[in-house]
Amino acid sequence: MAAEAEQGFRPLDEASLVAYIKATPALASRLGGALDSITIREVGDGNLNFVYIVLSDAGAIVVKQALPYVRLVGDSWPMTRERAYFEASALREHGRLCPDHVPEVFHFDRAMSLIGMRYIEPPHIILRKGLVAGVVYPLLADHMSDYMARTLFFTSMIYNTTTDHKKGVAQYCANVEMCRLTEQVVFSDPYRVAKFNRWTSPYLDKDAEAIREDDALKLEVAELKSMFIERAQALIHGDLHTSSIMVAPNSTQVIDSEFAFYGPMGFDIGAFLGNLILAYFAQDGHADQANDRKAYKRWILKTVEESWKLFYKKFVELWNKHKDGNGEAYLPDIFNNSDLLSLAQKKYMTKLFHDSLGFGAAKMIRRIVGIAHVEDFESIKDANKRALCERAALNCAKTILKGRRQFENIEQVVVYIQSFDQD
Amino acid sequence: MAAEAEQGFRPLDEASLVAYIKATPALASRLGGALDSITIREVGDGNLNFVYIVLSDAGAIVVKQALPYVRLVGDSWPMTRERAYFEASALREHGRLCPDHVPEVFHFDRAMSLIGMRYIEPPHIILRKGLVAGVVYPLLADHMSDYMARTLFFTSMIYNTTTDHKKGVAQYCANVEMCRLTEQVVFSDPYRVAKFNRWTSPYLDKDAEAIREDDALKLEVAELKSMFIERAQALIHGDLHTSSIMVAPNSTQVIDSEFAFYGPMGFDIGAFLGNLILAYFAQDGHADQANDRKAYKRWILKTVEESWKLFYKKFVELWNKHKDGNGEAYLPDIFNNSDLLSLAQKKYMTKLFHDSLGFGAAKMIRRIVGIAHVEDFESIKDANKRALCERAALNCAKTILKGRRQFENIEQVVVYIQSFDQD
Ligand SMILES: Nc1ncnc2c1ncn2[C@@H]1O[C@H](COP(=O)(O)OP(=O)(O)O)[C@@H](O)[C@H]1O
Ligand SMILES: Nc1ncnc2c1ncn2[C@@H]1O[C@H](COP(=O)(O)OP(=O)(O)O)[C@@H](O)[C@H]1O
Ligand SMILES: [Mg+2]
Ligand SMILES: [Mg+2]
Ligand SMILES: [Mg+2]
Ligand SMILES: [Mg+2]
Ligand SMILES: [Mg+2]
Repeated sequence: MAAEAEQGFRPLDEASLVAYIKATPALASRLGGALDSITIREVGDGNLNFVYIVLSDAGAIVVKQALPYVRLVGDSWPMTRERAYFEASALREHGRLCPDHVPEVFHFDRAMSLIGMRYIEPPHIILRKGLVAGVVYPLLADHMSDYMARTLFFTSMIYNTTTDHKKGVAQYCANVEMCRLTEQVVFSDPYRVAKFNRWTSPYLDKDAEAIREDDALKLEVAELKSMFIERAQALIHGDLHTSSIMVAPNSTQVIDSEFAFYGPMGFDIGAFLGNLILAYFAQDGHADQANDRKAYKRWILKTVEESWKLFYKKFVELWNKHKDGNGEAYLPDIFNNSDLLSLAQKKYMTKLFHDSLGFGAAKMIRRIVGIAHVEDFESIKDANKRALCERAALNCAKTILKGRRQFENIEQVVVYIQSFDQD
Repeated sequence: MAAEAEQGFRPLDEASLVAYIKATPALASRLGGALDSITIREVGDGNLNFVYIVLSDAGAIVVKQALPYVRLVGDSWPMTRERAYFEASALREHGRLCPDHVPEVFHFDRAMSLIGMRYIEPPHIILRKGLVAGVVYPLLADHMSDYMARTLFFTSMIYNTTTDHKKGVAQYCANVEMCRLTEQVVFSDPYRVAKFNRWTSPYLDKDAEAIREDDALKLEVAELKSMFIERAQALIHGDLHTSSIMVAPNSTQVIDSEFAFYGPMGFDIGAFLGNLILAYFAQDGHADQANDRKAYKRWILKTVEESWKLFYKKFVELWNKHKDGNGEAYLPDIFNNSDLLSLAQKKYMTKLFHDSLGFGAAKMIRRIVGIAHVEDFESIKDANKRALCERAALNCAKTILKGRRQFENIEQVVVYIQSFDQD
C-alpha cells in the first residue's frame, strides 16, 4: 500500500459517513440534497467489507468501504484495501457492457477504499436467500446469461485487440492478493489438512478425508488451478456465487466484483451454476409438510439448463454479430466461411462447457469441506439431514469434476445431478 | 513512447558509437580502457536491429540498438523501440537463471534503446549457418535442454509464488507490439491471403492455397493462437529459432530475446525443435557428391530426440528438487506422495509435449508460406529441388499440428518425420 493512500484513509462509521457524504457532491446529489433527513444502516453481511445503505427523503445510495483486513476474522487477517479499486473498476467495466444487471458506480475514492453506488432497493434480496426460501425467479436464467455473455464476450480476445487485452490483463494483475485467496480457499485447502477447513462432523469426516486422498481428483484440480492462474481469457467477476446476485421478480443485479481479474470464463459460469446446484442439493433439507420442494428442485435444474443454453446462444450471437470487428483471435479473412466459423464456435464452447463444469464442481466442493460454507446448507438445522444433503452434493461434484469431459451437453449434466437424489 | 525517451534517443553509427562508448564507463571498462584502438563492425544480419561488434586491443563488446522501425523494411514499418527494454530484461533474467548459455548484459540505456553485452567470439557462429554447412554440435541438445529447462521452470508457477508471477506477467504485457507481430506472422498470415506471404512459386502455389483452405488446420491453429495470447505459463524467449542461437564446438549461447513475454512454454520448445526439423528437410537440397548428408540428417533427428528427452529429464529434476519450495501451483501438502507427484508431472509434460509439437509445426509452416523464410531452404538454389524439400516439411508440419495429441513420445515423432523423406 502506497504511503499516500495510507495517509488519506480512515475507516468510517455511520456518523463520519454523513460528514463524508456532505463533503462529496457526487454522493450528496444522489440524495437530492436532502442531507438532514439521512438515515444510515450498515448491512454488510459478507465476509470482507462494510456496506452502508444511505437513505434520504429524496434519494438513496449504497456506500461500500474496504478495511485493511478481513471483516469476519478481524485485523489478524490483513487484506489489501486495493480490492476496492478493482471492484470499482470491474463494476464500471461490466456496468458499461451490461448496464441492466450491474449497479452504477457514482463515486470512487481510492485513498478511502470507498465505493458509492446505486442502491438496489427492495424487494431485491440476495439470490441465495431466495433459493433457501424456495422463491422462483422466472427471469434469472435469461438475465444471468445476458450478464455472463456480455461481460465475458466483450472482454475476450474474440472481441478485443491484443493491445487492449494486454492492457487490461496488466491492470488486473495487481489484484493478486484476491487471486491468491481464491487459489487457497478453492483450489488448495479442501485438498489438504488446513486450519480453517470445516465440515459437518462427524458425519462427513470420512468424506473430507476421501477428498484429501483422491489422487485423480487432485490431478484434475491442479489443472484447473493452473488455468485459473495462467489463463487470461476475459475480465471475470471472480466471485459469482448466489450471494453476489440480488434479485427481484423482474430484476437481477450483480454486485461485489472485488475478485475481478483476467481469468478463465468458466470460473464465473461455474460459480453461478455450481451454487445453483448446491441450492438444489440443499432443498431436501428444507422440505417439510407444507412444501416437499420437488417442484422447486425442478425449477432449479431448469434454471441450470436454461442458463447454460441461453449463455451459449447469446455468446455465439455476439460472436456472429462482431465477427468482422477488431477482435484478433478469430480473423474474418481466416474464418472466411460460415461452416468453419461455426465449427470454431462449437469447439470453443465445448471447451468452455467443460471448464465451467470443472470450476463449478470445485466451487461446490470447497463450500462443503473448506473454510466458507453456504447458507443453503448451514440453514439446515438437523446435522444428520444436512450431512446427507452435503454428501450427495459432494459426490456429485467430485465425479463431475473428474468426468467433466464426458458430458456432451447440459441436459446430460442435469440427468446426472438427479441421479444423486436421496430418494 | 514516452516523450522523455524520445528526447534522449538518437540512432548511432560507427562514429557516434565510439563517442558513446567513451562516455559510458560500463562499456569503456570492458574494452580495457584501450579506446583509441577501437574498431567497429556492424554485423546485424537479423531483420530488425543494428548490431555492432566493438573490438579494442584489450577487450570486446557487442552493442545492439533498436530503431523505431523494422530494419529490413525501413521506416514504412514502424516498431516500438521499447523492444530493447524487454530484450535487456529477458537477457538479464534468463542470464541469471542460466548464465552458461546467455550473454551477460553490461549496460542498458532505455532512452537510446541500446544494449551492451558480452561479445560471443569466434569460432561461434549462428546455429542455422552451422546446420546449413552440415556441422555437428555434439553438445547442442545438452546445452539447449539446460537453457530451456532452467529458464522455463524458474519463471513458471511451479517454482514461483502467484505474487511474483503476476508481477512478471504485468511487466511483459507491455511488450504487446512484439506479441502482435508474432500473432500476425505465425498464426494469421499463413492462413489467409496476405501481402507479404511468399513461397517457392509456382511449385508450391497449390500447397499454399491448400493451407488457406484446410479448415481442420485453421481450427487447430486458432487454438494455438489463443494459447499464445492468453496463457502466461512462463517467461519465454519468444523467438527461439536457430538464428537466435550461436554455437561453437563447446558452447551454446542464446541471443535476441526482444519477443520475450509470459507465454506458453511450448512456444519456445517448439521454435527450437521446429527449426531443427526445417534444417532436416533442407538437407536433401544440400546433399552433393562429396556428402549425401544422410549421417547429418540422422544427427539432426538424434538432436531433436535428445533435446526433448533431456529437457524432460532436467525439468522434472528441477521440479523434484524444488518441490518443497515457494511454488504455488503444486503444493507439497497436496502432492504429498511421490506417486501422485510423478503422475502430475507426467500429465504436465505430456500436455507440454503436445503444445510444443503444435507450436513447432506452426513455426515450420510459417517459414515456408509466410513472410520470413529461412536460410536452410533459401540457400538451395535450384527452385524445384527447394520446393520438394519445402513440400515435405510442410506436409510433415501440417499433419503433426493436426494430429499432435496422438504422439506418445518423441521417438514416434522422429519416425514420423522420416516417413516424409523423399527417398
Ligand atoms: N448496491 C447495493 N444495494 C443494496 N444492497 C447492497 C448493495 N451492495 C451490497 N449490498 C448488501 O450488502 C451485502 C454485502 O455486500 P457485498 O458487496 O457482497 O460485500 P462483501 O464484499 O463484504 O461480501 C450484500 O449481501 C447486500 O445485502
Ligand atoms: N552478443 C553477440 N556476440 C556476437 N555476435 C552477436 C551478438 N549478438 C548479436 N550478434 C550478431 O548479430 C546478429 C543479429 O543479432 P540479433 O540479436 O539476432 O538481431 P536482430 O534482433 O536484428 O535479429 C546475429 O545473427 C549475430 O551474428
Ligand atoms: Mg459479498
Ligand atoms: Mg466480496
Ligand atoms: Mg535475430
Ligand atoms: Mg550442462
Ligand atoms: Mg530479433
